[in-house]
Amino acid sequence: MTEEGHPGARMAVGLVHHPVVNRQGETVTSSVTSLDVHDLARLCRTYGVHSLYIITPLPAQARLVERLIRHWTAGYGSGVNPERKEALSRVMVVDRIEDMLDNFGLGVNGAVVMATSARKGPGAVSYREARRILAGAPKAAALFGTAHGMAAQAMSLANIRLEPIPGVDDYNHLPVRSAASIILDRLLGRDE
Amino acid sequence: MTEEGHPGARMAVGLVHHPVVNRQGETVTSSVTSLDVHDLARLCRTYGVHSLYIITPLPAQARLVERLIRHWTAGYGSGVNPERKEALSRVMVVDRIEDMLDNFGLGVNGAVVMATSARKGPGAVSYREARRILAGAPKAAALFGTAHGMAAQAMSLANIRLEPIPGVDDYNHLPVRSAASIILDRLLGRDE
Repeated sequence: MTEEGHPGARMAVGLVHHPVVNRQGETVTSSVTSLDVHDLARLCRTYGVHSLYIITPLPAQARLVERLIRHWTAGYGSGVNPERKEALSRVMVVDRIEDMLDNFGLGVNGAVVMATSARKGPGAVSYREARRILAGAPKAAALFGTAHGMAAQAMSLANIRLEPIPGVDDYNHLPVRSAASIILDRLLGRDE
Repeated sequence: MTEEGHPGARMAVGLVHHPVVNRQGETVTSSVTSLDVHDLARLCRTYGVHSLYIITPLPAQARLVERLIRHWTAGYGSGVNPERKEALSRVMVVDRIEDMLDNFGLGVNGAVVMATSARKGPGAVSYREARRILAGAPKAAALFGTAHGMAAQAMSLANIRLEPIPGVDDYNHLPVRSAASIILDRLLGRDE
């Protein structure tokens, strides 16, 4: 399959560093982890996701990510590791979730904004149902929270809430890198 | 579902640092990344996998991992982060893949040792088929290579080779953390 025509080609992923909650449930801004940027970029490239937005309101953090992207897409790194260039060339940094939604054109009719969470919530949609919805959506986004997950005001920007990843019991402490991998595979992966 | 009775309860995961190959295809020993240990431990805990073996022949690297495990299971960290304790209490370090297979009792009749690879190979088994096989296996293991994947001599210790993760095209540069997440979900995950 080529990248075009695949639901991933109409989809963006957002990695949210604000507003997220800490262990105590307070709204905070988390630090960007450069490894998250690398892992999610490669993951998005693998599944043909159009764009990865790193969402942070902190200018110093935004500059850090921009420097990382530049190094691997235009700087020295672009020559030594072409796979990384290909992955990181779809990454950009924005201040707020709303900026991502604007930038990717998610204001259109029928656009789907999916929130992910390790916590159960009312009206959560199964992965099977989400795949069906994605197939008919003109544009879509999936938002992943860092720290202890997205704050309520971030969740409220979504029109779909996905089920938590069902493990063997109620342990729900997957790293965001793992959760995003599993969720994108469930939404966009194929059986061979 | 409880942890007992689940196929994960009869399964071990091995993270292989030797023998693996580098970009040039030469057999090397890779360095342990502490984040891999944390991520895979939480992943194994989530899916009820019995044990996670970190496989490295380098004594200094083994000591590093053992110190990390001790810190989070018995040291200061065990009090501040109980979820991490729960995850890391199923991790151990061994020199060689063969030691993992011995230690987990994988010499028994019908035991399944699965190799994973980003490269296609002859006789690879689909995830659907692997789930069926796991349901009837008395013991099972899944081996994941770091660096550019397991060397041929490591692959040959397995009796099943899993299909590569099918992305949108032939880009196959997922981090081992992502690949392991997707593969465990495909082997052990449930639909809600």
